[in-house]
Amino acid sequence: MSLVVQKFGGTSVGDADRIRAVADHVARTKRAGNDVVVVVSAMGKTTDQLVRLADDVSSVQPEREVDMLLSSGERITMSLLCMALAELGVEAVSFTGSQAGMITDTVHTRAKILEVRGDRLRSTLAAGGVPVVAGFQGMSLEREVTTLGRGGSDTTAVALAAALGAEACEIYTDVSGVFTTDPRIVPEARKLHRVSYEEMQEMAATGGRVLALRSVEFARNHNVRLHVRSSFTWEPGTWVEEEDAQMEQAVVTAVTHDLSEAKVTVTGVPDKPGLAAKLFRGLADRNINVDMIVQNISLHGTTDISFTIPESDLVTSTDVCEGLVAELGATGVVSDDDVARVSLIGVGMKTHPGVTATTFESLAAAGINIEMISTSSIRISCLIRAEQAEDAVRALHAAFGLA
Amino acid sequence: MSLVVQKFGGTSVGDADRIRAVADHVARTKRAGNDVVVVVSAMGKTTDQLVRLADDVSSVQPEREVDMLLSSGERITMSLLCMALAELGVEAVSFTGSQAGMITDTVHTRAKILEVRGDRLRSTLAAGGVPVVAGFQGMSLEREVTTLGRGGSDTTAVALAAALGAEACEIYTDVSGVFTTDPRIVPEARKLHRVSYEEMQEMAATGGRVLALRSVEFARNHNVRLHVRSSFTWEPGTWVEEEDAQMEQAVVTAVTHDLSEAKVTVTGVPDKPGLAAKLFRGLADRNINVDMIVQNISLHGTTDISFTIPESDLVTSTDVCEGLVAELGATGVVSDDDVARVSLIGVGMKTHPGVTATTFESLAAAGINIEMISTSSIRISCLIRAEQAEDAVRALHAAFGLA
Repeated sequence: MSLVVQKFGGTSVGDADRIRAVADHVARTKRAGNDVVVVVSAMGKTTDQLVRLADDVSSVQPEREVDMLLSSGERITMSLLCMALAELGVEAVSFTGSQAGMITDTVHTRAKILEVRGDRLRSTLAAGGVPVVAGFQGMSLEREVTTLGRGGSDTTAVALAAALGAEACEIYTDVSGVFTTDPRIVPEARKLHRVSYEEMQEMAATGGRVLALRSVEFARNHNVRLHVRSSFTWEPGTWVEEEDAQMEQAVVTAVTHDLSEAKVTVTGVPDKPGLAAKLFRGLADRNINVDMIVQNISLHGTTDISFTIPESDLVTSTDVCEGLVAELGATGVVSDDDVARVSLIGVGMKTHPGVTATTFESLAAAGINIEMISTSSIRISCLIRAEQAEDAVRALHAAFGLA
Repeated sequence: MSLVVQKFGGTSVGDADRIRAVADHVARTKRAGNDVVVVVSAMGKTTDQLVRLADDVSSVQPEREVDMLLSSGERITMSLLCMALAELGVEAVSFTGSQAGMITDTVHTRAKILEVRGDRLRSTLAAGGVPVVAGFQGMSLEREVTTLGRGGSDTTAVALAAALGAEACEIYTDVSGVFTTDPRIVPEARKLHRVSYEEMQEMAATGGRVLALRSVEFARNHNVRLHVRSSFTWEPGTWVEEEDAQMEQAVVTAVTHDLSEAKVTVTGVPDKPGLAAKLFRGLADRNINVDMIVQNISLHGTTDISFTIPESDLVTSTDVCEGLVAELGATGVVSDDDVARVSLIGVGMKTHPGVTATTFESLAAAGINIEMISTSSIRISCLIRAEQAEDAVRALHAAFGLA
């Protein structure tokens, strides 16, 4: 008997009919002889509605209370799903993050899982039942309700799959898998049957919306095989797993883009050791993840330092930089949220040095100027004007023959 | 510094504006030098919506899952209220039933409080904060989420007031206090300034909707003074407290009515000892609270046994009775949900024997037939046809000069 973790996102459980369809699928999986642990998100737009309600009530929102508020969403889904399963004759038991033993640190709204104490889930499985677990939430060591931040339900599912030794973690969503690029931009985009963890991490980090980065990292670290599938068609989707010899070694596997980045430039920074360190320490102290960094060639003893950050951190980042201008002896801070990052991902890049050149050529041919570049061994990212993002995706998807 | 528990019902926290108004009131109470513990219900119709959603999803609803589902409602209110208080500069911390230490038995959907471990609330108070507690919910000894059933949030508030030694427990609702009868039926109904626990218990037990019976019983047992008030006008309401010499000793304090009763008659029961016991044990085993019981005079060795129960228990009660017909040697079961119970309540009855006679006379003068009667030392209840309930209330309210 194998154990499968099945995670259903918000659209998959968006209304009563969808919840019954999910129950039906879980029941079939169970009757096919598998043990099943289910992880659910909040129904459809529930989280958005709660956020709006909070905004209506107060401009001051302590993070502890935000977590308490948002964690109510999954409780609704999970208890409803247990009822639907009960109607199908499947014994199901719901568990909050706390009850499921998802122990986290104390950082509200973006807590990290420290430990999974899965005793109650194991007991339920041993008794032949289906545990239905609230995704996205946990309990801190101080017995406070925490949430895991964006993509938290995927992380919950992967963490449970790792802790319980599941054979696979199925992530059900409203798309049928991972594509070579966003099919809304390139209709010929192709569904990938297998992707390595490494590629999936880069895709998640650069705007691929199917899986959150953390959950892929977690899956990779614990060697949990992911299967990204549609809960609307139930057809086989994309496997995310360890890279192996059989895997198609295309030079480029996928093209992603991300409009949620912003660029900040600190101008006129004296060219002295330690100043950049001071700047990025200041940003790190505010929990801001800096992505690309470019420092211009020093002219007349000063330089400009540009970096990109998530758009949502733009105000804080600008504040941090402006607060440091005097200390750094810089001349000013310029911010720009009208940028996009377009990225090419592929394990084959490791052994194909020509990718950068082809990228530059095809973007140039499309009249697109590159403002910043960053690369890893399996990724090339270019920062460009936001309005050229879709053109860039189309140009690169075609240039590398991904259709 | 005195401690006040303030409980706000669903209409009092029905939308963002109402939540801000409540926050304002709590902040004023705090700034006036009081310690405050707040208990909240789910917003407005939230609970009804969740119940409807569950009905849409499944006809099978395990009670454990119903509790999990319904307990999400108060979490939303309490975190929003904490945000609104934060905006007013009041440090507030929300607590689920579990976090507040509301330990209950394991009976889902109608759990009883076994113990209040208020350590975390005391710490918050000691630190100058306002604990905001989810009403209606607790955690069982088996670490399961439980709910306290109808009027559960009032019970939470009273239990906390008792455990923390509060000076008073203020129950905020959408009416301005306890009235001599339902003002929608008798516009001249008068607001009572003080009512004894005993009278309030009888009123709650006989259709008075302002306070749930359990919370009044709990208040009486732990001598918690209740103040029932409006969260819309904030004017002084009705105090519910120990009867004392100063209390107005009207013969009749209030008239209540209840349309939610139903009557069941088991016909042709042989007149042998032990048969009635068997019948009522069977009902008790199904957790059905029987109210009035009437056994006809025995004719030809058989008798009819009639009793009243909450309408919601009618199907179960009829099932129980029909299951026992053969064993009892009875001839059949007749059910009737078209009845109403009208009750007169007043501590003064203890010393005024004429109340029963006046009751019968005024109902007779209004052309109302009495089908069953039950009395306590401070109450007279009459079962009548449902369609005559309002006429009966008006007749009795006038007959005893309550306007």
